[in-house]
Amino acid sequence: MRISSIEAKLYRIPPAARIQDSIQRIAKWEFILTTVTTDTGVAGTGFCYTLGLGGTALRELVETYLTPLLLGEDPRNIERIWNRCWWELHGLGSGGMSRFALATIDIALWDILAKQADVPLYRLLGGARERIPAYGSGINMHLDGEPLLDQMRGFLAKGYRAVKMKVGRDNPQEDIERVGAVRKLIGPGVKLMLDVNQKWSAGEAVRRAHSLRPFDPYWLEEPILADDREGHAHVRRGAGIPIAVGETLYTRYEFADYIRLGAVDVIQPDIPRAGGITECLKIAKLAESHNLPVAPHFLMELSVHLLCAVPNGLILEDLQGGSLTELGILAEPICVENGELSPPARPGHGIVFDPAVLRRFEVIGKPTDITWTRS
Amino acid sequence: MRISSIEAKLYRIPPAARIQDSIQRIAKWEFILTTVTTDTGVAGTGFCYTLGLGGTALRELVETYLTPLLLGEDPRNIERIWNRCWWELHGLGSGGMSRFALATIDIALWDILAKQADVPLYRLLGGARERIPAYGSGINMHLDGEPLLDQMRGFLAKGYRAVKMKVGRDNPQEDIERVGAVRKLIGPGVKLMLDVNQKWSAGEAVRRAHSLRPFDPYWLEEPILADDREGHAHVRRGAGIPIAVGETLYTRYEFADYIRLGAVDVIQPDIPRAGGITECLKIAKLAESHNLPVAPHFLMELSVHLLCAVPNGLILEDLQGGSLTELGILAEPICVENGELSPPARPGHGIVFDPAVLRRFEVIGKPTDITWTRS
Repeated sequence: MRISSIEAKLYRIPPAARIQDSIQRIAKWEFILTTVTTDTGVAGTGFCYTLGLGGTALRELVETYLTPLLLGEDPRNIERIWNRCWWELHGLGSGGMSRFALATIDIALWDILAKQADVPLYRLLGGARERIPAYGSGINMHLDGEPLLDQMRGFLAKGYRAVKMKVGRDNPQEDIERVGAVRKLIGPGVKLMLDVNQKWSAGEAVRRAHSLRPFDPYWLEEPILADDREGHAHVRRGAGIPIAVGETLYTRYEFADYIRLGAVDVIQPDIPRAGGITECLKIAKLAESHNLPVAPHFLMELSVHLLCAVPNGLILEDLQGGSLTELGILAEPICVENGELSPPARPGHGIVFDPAVLRRFEVIGKPTDITWTRS
Repeated sequence: MRISSIEAKLYRIPPAARIQDSIQRIAKWEFILTTVTTDTGVAGTGFCYTLGLGGTALRELVETYLTPLLLGEDPRNIERIWNRCWWELHGLGSGGMSRFALATIDIALWDILAKQADVPLYRLLGGARERIPAYGSGINMHLDGEPLLDQMRGFLAKGYRAVKMKVGRDNPQEDIERVGAVRKLIGPGVKLMLDVNQKWSAGEAVRRAHSLRPFDPYWLEEPILADDREGHAHVRRGAGIPIAVGETLYTRYEFADYIRLGAVDVIQPDIPRAGGITECLKIAKLAESHNLPVAPHFLMELSVHLLCAVPNGLILEDLQGGSLTELGILAEPICVENGELSPPARPGHGIVFDPAVLRRFEVIGKPTDITWTRS
C-alpha cells in the first residue's frame, strides 16, 4: 500500500457566532484540508486550522515540502512517517507551525488505517467507551447580563451538564458579577469552567482565583502565559481551583515539563497543534501515567475518538461558533445528544466534509482581508 | 516615519562545502530576505534561513499575513511591533516558524533604526567592544584522518584560536580517535568544541563525555534532544564539560527554563530562530544576569553586532560552508581577521547582499528539488 497523491486546500470560514476572548476576536477560521490517496483507492482526510493567520503558509508546507517526501511511502507506517517528517521539519521548530502540517498528514493516515481495518478510529486507538460528555463553551468575553445568560440557557437546553465562560475583564468586579450570575442561573449541579486565555500574571491569577472561588469553578484555564510553567505551578498551588492547560502547547515534552512541575490538573491537547493523533495519544498516556484527566481543546468531532479510546478521557469542548457541524461544512452532522457525543459509526474518523459548501470558502491564491485581531 | 512597503524574496543556495552532522546533511540553504522601505526613503534588510525546507511557507507568512498588518506602522516602534506581531501569530505557536517571519521584519527594523541614527547597529544595541573572537566550525561528521585535519589546519591558518567539530559516530571509538587526532594537531592552547546535534540520550551523553574529556573540550554542544531540559541538567552535572545549548530554542522562556534548571553553561541563541535582535538582546541580558556567556549559532555577520553590544559576548561561529561571505552573496565581504570579527563600520547592520548573485538563486514559484535529508 503506497501513498499515490496528497492534495491540500485552504478555506477561510467565518465563525457561526461572535468569538471574543480576553485577548482577541476571531474574524475567520482557516482550515487546511488534506486528502491523502493510496494506490488501493482508500483515501484519508486530515485537517488543521488557524485563528485566521498562516493558512497559505501551512498549505505551502504540505504541498511543497511534505508531499514530495511522502509520495510512495506506505501510509500504515505512521510512527515512521511522523518521526521522519518531524525531524525533516525540526530546523523550523520542534513545535509551532510545522506541527500543524504534520497533523494534517497524520490525521489522514489514521483515517486510512481505520478505514482499512473497517472500524471507527476510536476502536483502533484503544476503545475505552462509546460516548463521552461534552461542555458548552462560550467564547463570550463580550457578553454580560441577559445575552450571557441566554447563551448559557442555550447550552442547558441542549442537555449540557457543564459550561465554560471567558473571564479576564480589566475590572475584576465585572468577572465576579458575570460568573456569579451564571452560577446562579445554572445552579450548583452544573460544572462551570473559567477560561482566562493567558491574560493574567501569576500573582494576579491567584488573587483573581480567590475572588472567583465562591462560585465553585470546575477548572481555571490558561490563567497566565502558557510559556510560563513555573508561573502555572505557583497559580496551581495558590488558586484552590484545578488548573487546565494545553491548547497552546505543541510537544509531549512541554506536557511532561508541566506535569513534572506540578503545574497542571487537566491536560488539554489540541490535536492539530500537537501534530496529530499520534502525538496526542502519547500525551494522553503520559497524563494517564500521572493520574491526570484529558480534556482536548476544540474540534470535538475529531477529539471524540481520542477521548473514547483512553480511560482518562474527561470531557469534550463544543466551542460555540466553531464546531464543524455548526460551521455547516459537514456532509453529515456530528451532534451532541443529551450532553454527550459518540464517534460516528463509520470506518475511519467519520468526518465527511461537504465539498459544495467548502467550495464557497476556498482560497485559491492569497487572502486579502488580513487585519489586526488583537489590540 | 511610516513603513511604505515590504518585499520578501526566497533564495535556495547550495552550501560552499559539504555540511554533514550526526543527524543530517544540508543540501540547500534557504534564505528569506525582507526589504522594509519607509516613506523617508530609508530601507532596512532583514533575513532568516532554513536548512532547506519551509522557505516558501515563510515567504507566505511575511507577504500575505505580516505585510498588510505592518504597512503604515512607524518602524521605530520595534517593541510594539514585535509584541503585536507575536500575539497575532501566537495561535501558530509561541516559538517555531512564526519566529522566523518575525525575525526578518525585526532585523530590518533594527537596520532602519541604526541607519536613521547613523551608527553601526552594535553601538545602538549597547557598544561593549569593537571586535570579538570567532571559531572555525567544521560540519564534518563525514571527515576522518587527513581530510579532517586539513579542515582544522585551514582554520588555524586563518588565525583561529578555537575550532569546533562534530561528534556522534555510532562507534564511540571513532569519536575518540577523531577528537584525539584534532587535539594532537591543534595543541593544548587552542580551544576545541564538540557538537553532538542532539543525537544521544542523557545517560549515553555522560558516558561519551567521559571518554572525550581527556581531550579537554571547551564545551559539549546539544548532547541530547533540546526539548529535554531535565536531561541536559543531568548531562551537565555528570559530564565534567561545559554544556552549550540554544540553537534550537526559540523563546526567552525556554532559555529561562534551561538556566533555572542548571542545564546550560553557554547560551547559544540563533537570531532568526529566536525571532530577531529584539528577543536575542533579552536572552543575552537574561544570561548576563545569571553570569553566563553568549555564543550565538550561525550567521556571524549579524551576530557580531549582538556580541559587540553586550558584556557577556563570548565567541562567534564561522560555520564553514555557510558564512554569507563564503556563499558569495555579499556585495562587500565581512571577513574574520586574526581570528576576530569586527562589525562593518557603516550605519545599520552593514550586511549588503549582491543582487546580481542572489538573482541566480531566487525561487519565484515553488522549489521542486525536495528530498529527505535525514535517514
